[in-house]
Amino acid sequence: MANRDHLLKVDVCLSEHNYSIYICRNGLNNADLLRQIAASSQVLIVTNHTIAPFYLNSIQSAFSDRHCNTIILPDGEQYKDHQSLFQIIESLIVNQYHRDCLLVALGGGVVGDLTGFAASIYQRGCKYLQIPTSLLAQVDASVGGKTAINYNKGKNILGSFYQPDAVLIDPLTLNTLPKREFVAGIAEIIKYGLLEGGATLQRLQELLSQGVEAFYTHSAEVIEMCCRIKVKYVENDEKEQNERALLNLGHTFAHALESYTDYKQWLHGEAVAIGLHCAALLSHQMNLLSLNWLKVIQNMIRDIGLPWLIPKNTDLNQLIELMQHDKKIKNNRLRFILIKKPGACYLETEVSKEQLLLSLQKAQ
Amino acid sequence: MANRDHLLKVDVCLSEHNYSIYICRNGLNNADLLRQIAASSQVLIVTNHTIAPFYLNSIQSAFSDRHCNTIILPDGEQYKDHQSLFQIIESLIVNQYHRDCLLVALGGGVVGDLTGFAASIYQRGCKYLQIPTSLLAQVDASVGGKTAINYNKGKNILGSFYQPDAVLIDPLTLNTLPKREFVAGIAEIIKYGLLEGGATLQRLQELLSQGVEAFYTHSAEVIEMCCRIKVKYVENDEKEQNERALLNLGHTFAHALESYTDYKQWLHGEAVAIGLHCAALLSHQMNLLSLNWLKVIQNMIRDIGLPWLIPKNTDLNQLIELMQHDKKIKNNRLRFILIKKPGACYLETEVSKEQLLLSLQKAQ
Repeated sequence: MANRDHLLKVDVCLSEHNYSIYICRNGLNNADLLRQIAASSQVLIVTNHTIAPFYLNSIQSAFSDRHCNTIILPDGEQYKDHQSLFQIIESLIVNQYHRDCLLVALGGGVVGDLTGFAASIYQRGCKYLQIPTSLLAQVDASVGGKTAINYNKGKNILGSFYQPDAVLIDPLTLNTLPKREFVAGIAEIIKYGLLEGGATLQRLQELLSQGVEAFYTHSAEVIEMCCRIKVKYVENDEKEQNERALLNLGHTFAHALESYTDYKQWLHGEAVAIGLHCAALLSHQMNLLSLNWLKVIQNMIRDIGLPWLIPKNTDLNQLIELMQHDKKIKNNRLRFILIKKPGACYLETEVSKEQLLLSLQKAQ
Repeated sequence: MANRDHLLKVDVCLSEHNYSIYICRNGLNNADLLRQIAASSQVLIVTNHTIAPFYLNSIQSAFSDRHCNTIILPDGEQYKDHQSLFQIIESLIVNQYHRDCLLVALGGGVVGDLTGFAASIYQRGCKYLQIPTSLLAQVDASVGGKTAINYNKGKNILGSFYQPDAVLIDPLTLNTLPKREFVAGIAEIIKYGLLEGGATLQRLQELLSQGVEAFYTHSAEVIEMCCRIKVKYVENDEKEQNERALLNLGHTFAHALESYTDYKQWLHGEAVAIGLHCAALLSHQMNLLSLNWLKVIQNMIRDIGLPWLIPKNTDLNQLIELMQHDKKIKNNRLRFILIKKPGACYLETEVSKEQLLLSLQKAQ
């Protein structure tokens, strides 16, 4: 393929499906690459009003010789719902898209989750291409085939495990991302550092010590690093029967915090940052994580400018009640990802309500 | 397991999931068997107003020691829609069902398709048990993991490939099935005879020559025969990439006929009967199927009391237009399952509109 820009490629090998993640600076302007990885005569592009002005034109023109339509949704987590889903489905039906069509998700996690879900159920499954434009979606949400919509109070309560045909990540899109959202994405990168430990954590700490700017400068490297880690978990356990659950480190807390505040107070990554802190506090509370490591983790989250504390006025019992909607619940028991030290996390079934409440109090 | 009634078992072995089809006279009153194959502490039963008075009590009492709720839907294809789907989802959320819960589909194809689809998307997939009560669902719809709902004019336009955890078939339920529906189910059995040919066709012809009553007398045998054939196709090609498409013999015509008449004129099996006749006529039109075999097939369908002709007032061009929604379309071309002779069917891409129209005219 003709391109002047460096191309990194991470392959994903699953039992029934292989695909590649392409990390390519200026990839969204690379029509040859786009045409090559979107192999279908019918293409439906799904994006939102924030992203469309920046990138929609170049994607559309790459597919100008195809049967191509576009849906532009409003921007925001509250639109990851069944109404947006049926808007996509309606367009597929009305425009006579067949089962061998391809959906393009151009945007952040919301557009990716929603479009992937639509692709997974239209005619029992058609193809889709992820083009994530936020840091959080590039390092986490666009990889691994988790699709979802929210329904009522249920975050990601409907969805599927359904792999894309390809993921195209253009780190240059990060230049148009609001700084608050960029920093929120760093929370998921910290999660990978805690899951992996070792050289990953060391490199993460180097970057964190240089401030947010370092994550712009080294974006392709960071994205590749995170994708490789995530792919390893997904290849071992696509449907989250076991170790893939570890990727939810901090997320039981984060989802409850988001639900408690009606998804209005924090970006997902910010809630994850507080959630990682809670997971560390709970792990310390249970004599698993040393005080020294706890402080290291606290500093990582706080110093990069992420929120790390639960607001004082939060009703912690209500927060715990909201955790009862967690998808990791098994045999009626909540399960938490705990940290013995970075690089040694595991899924724990035996967490008492007392220990949970104590650690949440310390996070306030 | 304690049961006085004969139990047949057909195993389904797929790459990621194995399960069994239990064919058991009086199985719906076998609480031990039900409890054994529905291994979850949370059970949601989905059924309809026609079936509930006959069988709901015995299913509910088998799960009286579990967290168990029931949804009773109105009966009919028009309720296989997103509103019924969200009624199920709503109940799962409100009653705090976790990902390790189990849904029970107690009813015909509509209840099975709908409940299976709900199970496939709730929390990205929970367990479900099929208890089909119609002949059509017992010999076809409940096996193989195709789930779906209709949306607007799109028959089965949303759905998934998602396997149940078990299928429990009680042939005694056929005694409460209206005769018209029973006969409609025989259309799918004829389909299997045409796909398989040989001994299967021979046995089918024996039964057909004895009239409808023979299918009651030998129901367990017939159900097992059909399940084994279907399982073979599903095991070889779970996601319908290739030969599983052959199970759609007659269905491109049937779906168009159902859509043309707003699903009001024929039961699905009746439309399939006409569709099988159309497939045979098209195959003969293209010099594939001998006149002799064509007559045999016509007689099989007609003599058992199934409809076999397209009504005279049908607009055939509009019928062909409706076929453009077929899920087998690839590269913008309709594909038909054609019959060289019973036991030798294949997927044909090159069917001209003229040939199609000519054979539809002969079916009128």
